[in-house]
Amino acid sequence: MKRILGLGLLCMCVAGEAESQQYEASWESLDKRETPSWWTDAKFGIFIHWGLYAVPAYAPVDEVEGVYEKYAEHYENRLITKNELFTKHHAKYFGEDFAYRDFAPMFKAQYFDPDNWADLFQKSGAKYVVLTSKHHDGFCLWPSKESPRWNSVATGPHRDLAGDLTAAVRAKGLRMGFYYSLLEWSHPLYAEATINKWVDRHMIPQMKDLVTRYKPEIIFSDGEWDYTSDKLKSEQFLAWLYNESPVRETVVVNDRWGSETRSKHGGYYTTEYDLVHNTEGIGEAGAHAWEESRGIGTSYGYNRFETTDHYFTSKQLIDLLIDKVSNGGNLLLNVGPRADGLIPVIMQERLLDMGQWLQVNGEAIYGTSAWDKRPPNMKEQGVFYTIKGKDLYVICTRWPDKPVRVRGLEKAGQVRMLGTQARAKSSFRNGVLTIHPPALHPGNIPGNHAWVFRVESIQ
Amino acid sequence: MKRILGLGLLCMCVAGEAESQQYEASWESLDKRETPSWWTDAKFGIFIHWGLYAVPAYAPVDEVEGVYEKYAEHYENRLITKNELFTKHHAKYFGEDFAYRDFAPMFKAQYFDPDNWADLFQKSGAKYVVLTSKHHDGFCLWPSKESPRWNSVATGPHRDLAGDLTAAVRAKGLRMGFYYSLLEWSHPLYAEATINKWVDRHMIPQMKDLVTRYKPEIIFSDGEWDYTSDKLKSEQFLAWLYNESPVRETVVVNDRWGSETRSKHGGYYTTEYDLVHNTEGIGEAGAHAWEESRGIGTSYGYNRFETTDHYFTSKQLIDLLIDKVSNGGNLLLNVGPRADGLIPVIMQERLLDMGQWLQVNGEAIYGTSAWDKRPPNMKEQGVFYTIKGKDLYVICTRWPDKPVRVRGLEKAGQVRMLGTQARAKSSFRNGVLTIHPPALHPGNIPGNHAWVFRVESIQ
Amino acid sequence: MKRILGLGLLCMCVAGEAESQQYEASWESLDKRETPSWWTDAKFGIFIHWGLYAVPAYAPVDEVEGVYEKYAEHYENRLITKNELFTKHHAKYFGEDFAYRDFAPMFKAQYFDPDNWADLFQKSGAKYVVLTSKHHDGFCLWPSKESPRWNSVATGPHRDLAGDLTAAVRAKGLRMGFYYSLLEWSHPLYAEATINKWVDRHMIPQMKDLVTRYKPEIIFSDGEWDYTSDKLKSEQFLAWLYNESPVRETVVVNDRWGSETRSKHGGYYTTEYDLVHNTEGIGEAGAHAWEESRGIGTSYGYNRFETTDHYFTSKQLIDLLIDKVSNGGNLLLNVGPRADGLIPVIMQERLLDMGQWLQVNGEAIYGTSAWDKRPPNMKEQGVFYTIKGKDLYVICTRWPDKPVRVRGLEKAGQVRMLGTQARAKSSFRNGVLTIHPPALHPGNIPGNHAWVFRVESIQ
Amino acid sequence: MKRILGLGLLCMCVAGEAESQQYEASWESLDKRETPSWWTDAKFGIFIHWGLYAVPAYAPVDEVEGVYEKYAEHYENRLITKNELFTKHHAKYFGEDFAYRDFAPMFKAQYFDPDNWADLFQKSGAKYVVLTSKHHDGFCLWPSKESPRWNSVATGPHRDLAGDLTAAVRAKGLRMGFYYSLLEWSHPLYAEATINKWVDRHMIPQMKDLVTRYKPEIIFSDGEWDYTSDKLKSEQFLAWLYNESPVRETVVVNDRWGSETRSKHGGYYTTEYDLVHNTEGIGEAGAHAWEESRGIGTSYGYNRFETTDHYFTSKQLIDLLIDKVSNGGNLLLNVGPRADGLIPVIMQERLLDMGQWLQVNGEAIYGTSAWDKRPPNMKEQGVFYTIKGKDLYVICTRWPDKPVRVRGLEKAGQVRMLGTQARAKSSFRNGVLTIHPPALHPGNIPGNHAWVFRVESIQ
Repeated sequence: MKRILGLGLLCMCVAGEAESQQYEASWESLDKRETPSWWTDAKFGIFIHWGLYAVPAYAPVDEVEGVYEKYAEHYENRLITKNELFTKHHAKYFGEDFAYRDFAPMFKAQYFDPDNWADLFQKSGAKYVVLTSKHHDGFCLWPSKESPRWNSVATGPHRDLAGDLTAAVRAKGLRMGFYYSLLEWSHPLYAEATINKWVDRHMIPQMKDLVTRYKPEIIFSDGEWDYTSDKLKSEQFLAWLYNESPVRETVVVNDRWGSETRSKHGGYYTTEYDLVHNTEGIGEAGAHAWEESRGIGTSYGYNRFETTDHYFTSKQLIDLLIDKVSNGGNLLLNVGPRADGLIPVIMQERLLDMGQWLQVNGEAIYGTSAWDKRPPNMKEQGVFYTIKGKDLYVICTRWPDKPVRVRGLEKAGQVRMLGTQARAKSSFRNGVLTIHPPALHPGNIPGNHAWVFRVESIQ
Repeated sequence: MKRILGLGLLCMCVAGEAESQQYEASWESLDKRETPSWWTDAKFGIFIHWGLYAVPAYAPVDEVEGVYEKYAEHYENRLITKNELFTKHHAKYFGEDFAYRDFAPMFKAQYFDPDNWADLFQKSGAKYVVLTSKHHDGFCLWPSKESPRWNSVATGPHRDLAGDLTAAVRAKGLRMGFYYSLLEWSHPLYAEATINKWVDRHMIPQMKDLVTRYKPEIIFSDGEWDYTSDKLKSEQFLAWLYNESPVRETVVVNDRWGSETRSKHGGYYTTEYDLVHNTEGIGEAGAHAWEESRGIGTSYGYNRFETTDHYFTSKQLIDLLIDKVSNGGNLLLNVGPRADGLIPVIMQERLLDMGQWLQVNGEAIYGTSAWDKRPPNMKEQGVFYTIKGKDLYVICTRWPDKPVRVRGLEKAGQVRMLGTQARAKSSFRNGVLTIHPPALHPGNIPGNHAWVFRVESIQ
Repeated sequence: MKRILGLGLLCMCVAGEAESQQYEASWESLDKRETPSWWTDAKFGIFIHWGLYAVPAYAPVDEVEGVYEKYAEHYENRLITKNELFTKHHAKYFGEDFAYRDFAPMFKAQYFDPDNWADLFQKSGAKYVVLTSKHHDGFCLWPSKESPRWNSVATGPHRDLAGDLTAAVRAKGLRMGFYYSLLEWSHPLYAEATINKWVDRHMIPQMKDLVTRYKPEIIFSDGEWDYTSDKLKSEQFLAWLYNESPVRETVVVNDRWGSETRSKHGGYYTTEYDLVHNTEGIGEAGAHAWEESRGIGTSYGYNRFETTDHYFTSKQLIDLLIDKVSNGGNLLLNVGPRADGLIPVIMQERLLDMGQWLQVNGEAIYGTSAWDKRPPNMKEQGVFYTIKGKDLYVICTRWPDKPVRVRGLEKAGQVRMLGTQARAKSSFRNGVLTIHPPALHPGNIPGNHAWVFRVESIQ
Repeated sequence: MKRILGLGLLCMCVAGEAESQQYEASWESLDKRETPSWWTDAKFGIFIHWGLYAVPAYAPVDEVEGVYEKYAEHYENRLITKNELFTKHHAKYFGEDFAYRDFAPMFKAQYFDPDNWADLFQKSGAKYVVLTSKHHDGFCLWPSKESPRWNSVATGPHRDLAGDLTAAVRAKGLRMGFYYSLLEWSHPLYAEATINKWVDRHMIPQMKDLVTRYKPEIIFSDGEWDYTSDKLKSEQFLAWLYNESPVRETVVVNDRWGSETRSKHGGYYTTEYDLVHNTEGIGEAGAHAWEESRGIGTSYGYNRFETTDHYFTSKQLIDLLIDKVSNGGNLLLNVGPRADGLIPVIMQERLLDMGQWLQVNGEAIYGTSAWDKRPPNMKEQGVFYTIKGKDLYVICTRWPDKPVRVRGLEKAGQVRMLGTQARAKSSFRNGVLTIHPPALHPGNIPGNHAWVFRVESIQ
């Protein structure tokens, strides 16, 4: 694993920043860059999918004859490829002569209050925010010169959504990043014959504009599957990003830079709804920085048809965070705001619940690492582990009605349940640490969902 | 208190129905009618405020310079009376030349699925549903002949919303009722000079049409404050309703039939967000059937600007239900659907949480009465009481970390916590029943929010 | 023919007004009232069909498989009766879920300038204006209490179109009248079972409101075919109108008051696009006051699909006026304004051309009568006649390249062509007046279209 | 004057085509190319300004406090530059948050029938059509790759308006051309700093795409005033157009290729509403091919507020054509269709009137040249001249009530008035040809507006 040690003994860089060294435009060189530690320490980020697709806000929530298309942000594509569920819905509610682009003036974002959003994100306990600066429909949430007629300032909201959110997020002390789609479904230059023009005149200038204009510390690229990274000139872009860009010290990128790069090249590896696109690397937890992204519900973009059946409960989300972090990953939890700029209250509540849990138990999450002696069946047991310095965190996602046994330690100090004053009784014998949960009831329990024992001075 | 005894010894009527007797068109006679017991047994109903106001879906959630207008359904009136918060909002987002009536074609209800709604209401544990057939803006959710151009079939949804919901609600075994506004803010006949025409040609025919067409078992009238019940001919209408209408046996009405009638005449008394409009009668719990109505949030009609700060939590809603029922009242909890026909997920979740609690603890709610020996400080103590036959229900809205003491009994049998197998330890000494809460932890506790002890065979 | 003599020898009434006598509510009495002379002198009026139908502004301009529906104002009805041309057009351009009533907010009339309209009408030479206060779709162009949600103040323009136009028309010295439809296609009360309520509560109050509010001097009723005048209580209404209303002296009505009344009862008889609905009476020119109405094109309501093929030329319109007037009738020429409140320029031009012709030749039109010795074949000969006092007007709709011979006179004085200084050579011999057209060329001819010789001192 | 002689003695090219020679990318070389004779023979073309500006369709028709902005197609610019008349109008009718780009989905062109248009243009007597492929707002009426999100296929009509019209126009035997704006008011690349990118990546590729895709025979460029032709690389483009493009033989261009080029370089010179932008060259009639463009009314783009006061009459338009042609120019008469795709009837009528006149008198227009001995005061005299081979056409725009005297001939043959059978009496004495107009009256005159004598065998 390449993350910089918190102590940073070997380099002169400020904590959380990558070394100021020079990289060549080759994967061999680029892959040597370590993921800045601010990101591996952060653990929890907010993903935002927001765009025209929030107007229809449609994906079929239930499988229909084997077809299941859960992502509302794919609306344009599903019309282009004539997915019957989508075309029927579209014809019925918008009409056959109504094109996807006609949603633009209906994407008004009229009640968008970036400070409110940022406040919510901060309260959720997340440490960074990643906004879709542009999804596969090509619609830019900033005034991109390369998309002069197809951005949120030119039409729809008539506002620099990316810029306004960036300012608000930073004012709350969170880091800001952007999702960016390398492809556009309906741009005429995005084609085999003109891919070079596409890259030189559209894609690279757009990405550089984003970086120099807003100085994002994360680039979550996507839509990389049609062409190799060579054709997409991703190595050149990353060399520029690492060597010359204003964010060269702190920027973090993912692994989606060409048809061959997932879980292989670039920055952290990505999984999505637990789907590992390239099994190499990710499986071996801890081997490389990685991040899971998923929605609170089943879609990234807002889907108005999701019900309580489709939304994860707060409990499930907290379990998810624990699972990913204890396996060395980050969680990028997605929020899909409405076209009017408001975040559905159910999403607000989920984020606040997570924040409340992290308020008590955050020290078992932030800045921790996966414990290299963790057992393989953590999920079945409902007991997870993270480690930070000499402290081991034992995280129970079910209430331990029996004593919890921890194996693999050579030594263990005091044990406490986070959020309580009392020491938990524990014993260490034959290499097994046995923790006796305190007798708590709804009147004095430190929150719900999951409970953490901190084991000090381990070896 | 006038509710019919469950045993029904003195009359031949079917349980849950009022006696088939004749009433005169005078309060003296009408007030003698007992509230049908199906309603006093039901305890929990769903109120629905749905109409054009769901399009702007606006009320200022926070007080601005002392002005606070929390009800989104008052939108038209606040424009008419030039409330600055509303007129500014309206001018900014809809334009100065845009009239309230122009919302009609935007109130599409295109995704309205009455079966989904009814399913949700049933799962919430509610036993009846009350829909705004017409609010103060006069817009009818059914094809009213008296409002031929201003109803949901003529414009907007182009659908009989009231009829479709009624059918779906009944298919789930729930009772259906209607809210109906006696006044209309902007109808030219609703004026001092023409009030007689108003009543004869518009209001009474409309109400009779509603009753004969859909046979609602509740009439929640409102907007009664401008004229006496005499002018509004409410006594005549109620005499017809009780003597001749198809629902004469089972219908329940409230107390809003003229400027002088609240908490005095008609059927059950009404409170609203704990506000008792006429203090007579209501204070003395148990003296008369009554019902509290309020929204899950701060508005009845959907207000898109409400956040988690404004929504009651599931815990608060369950406490509310317990409080009202243990004081002899019903709870009519309001849901404000969106203009597109969907119920916000946060509201769905609240209702389902209540339903889950009632699944375990419903026997302490349905069919119970207020206990006449209940202490005055139940809220402070977090302990409430209901009674049914020989069972007393002791409802703890805070986890009892100390033994619970119940005073006022002469005798007490077994005590159990609902939802658990184990008997709770208890002792009866010196007229005091002491209940020792069982040692439960998150792993075996029967749900959250509130816990109920059933005390059998009391005297 | 019943028009009052200009000299008014026998009654004390002011010229142009009917006698102030009392009428009974019976056709026998009502039919005795003479048509006020202001109207029979006026000859030329402007009809205006304006309403929601101006939004789709559609009627198929060409016959399709034998079906031809030229009237755009029938749009709602053609949807109701599922005329395939209309339903296809509607589904294609507005969608299947779009109801006729949904046009209301699109009928904005935002650029309506009544002074501009009135100015144009005055310049056209017309002497009166008749506006559709309400067409068969029931939409009122004034704030009718009986249609509180379906009028131009409540929705759409949010303006009293009828009132504003009335004021402007009168300011220009023209008379104002209203078209009013006795039926409404989609009003629930308009039905066999409730026709009495319809008449008493809706129709009669609406008409009386119109009359007392705006004091129109013409009532052009229509939509009378479903019920007899008895059922519609037309006799009572007219008795009120003639005896008590504020316009009892000057008001003029037509003959559409019940299924049996056309060309039989009421005021002047009506023809429409030369169609005589009831042949009795009209054929015998001069026997009774009558009026032809038609559009400048093929529709009354604005039809955006009409082209130059469908519009009458200025020449054709002038010929039309001459034809009707020389047969004792009036011409009510219809204008169909657009939904935005503008009158298409082609219509403006036609009216101005007529005005220009009337400027020169108006004395042969206004205040004249049909000549009782006119030959039957005026149209074939292209020579028409009108008479006023001792002057005979010989109107040539084709340039007379041969001498014009007038038969039937006993004596004839000087002959002049209107608009020129020179006397026309003429001779009277053997009962034949021979007029020699002057030698004129495009440089000195008094206008185009039609030329008038005034023959003085005839006998 | 550079037009190719009809006889084409010196070159082998097909009549109407330019020589197939090679040009260098320099004005010196390019200016040597002769204007293809098809164009100088055609005399009369139809200009079409159609775009988003047809939605507001607004320009103030009357001067307001010295400000007068008659062109509706300038709407976006007048908002950008905060012209008060426009911003007030916009705020009132569309709202302050409504951007010019928001008109795109309202520009539907839903009733556009290119065959109908082409039929009308053919009947007008015009020989070519020039459509705004893109105006200064940058909106393309074809699916331009360089404007992928801002064209009529991507949004609004969702249709290739340019392509569809081109096919229809050619099917009627007319030539097709395009107006193209070199500038775009609101494109971010159109700026001093990036003008090179603008030209290379946007402007030139767009123009070449237009040419290769639709093979237009006219390029009416415009918006050339901000940069020199050198910066705009116009010479290179024209060299490509003349040497390599598929229309190199027949294409005609105008003189708007850089801030210094009007009436100096390029193809034919342009005037606009009689305004000569660069007085050099144009004044000396006959010195160089030239063309006047103007609207039928006061605007190019459709202005719904124009009335009969603003439209030229048919007479005025015919006089205009005569004036331009007799001075050696062409007339490009503009039509502004509505946003729904229909051409206002008043415009249809004007074009048909011109066509009717040309039907009779076209031989005095098509294929003629200015007569080099024409007197300077033709307008005052109302007598104009054109020449073709040995025939002189004497065109009287006022009816000649006195004999017409033609000076400058040495010999003259028979004289006839076009459209009549009879020979006109004439005499030739002392170098003066005297023509005696025939005695005609409205019954036998060959049309209105203007009358033509053909004088044969002149010298």
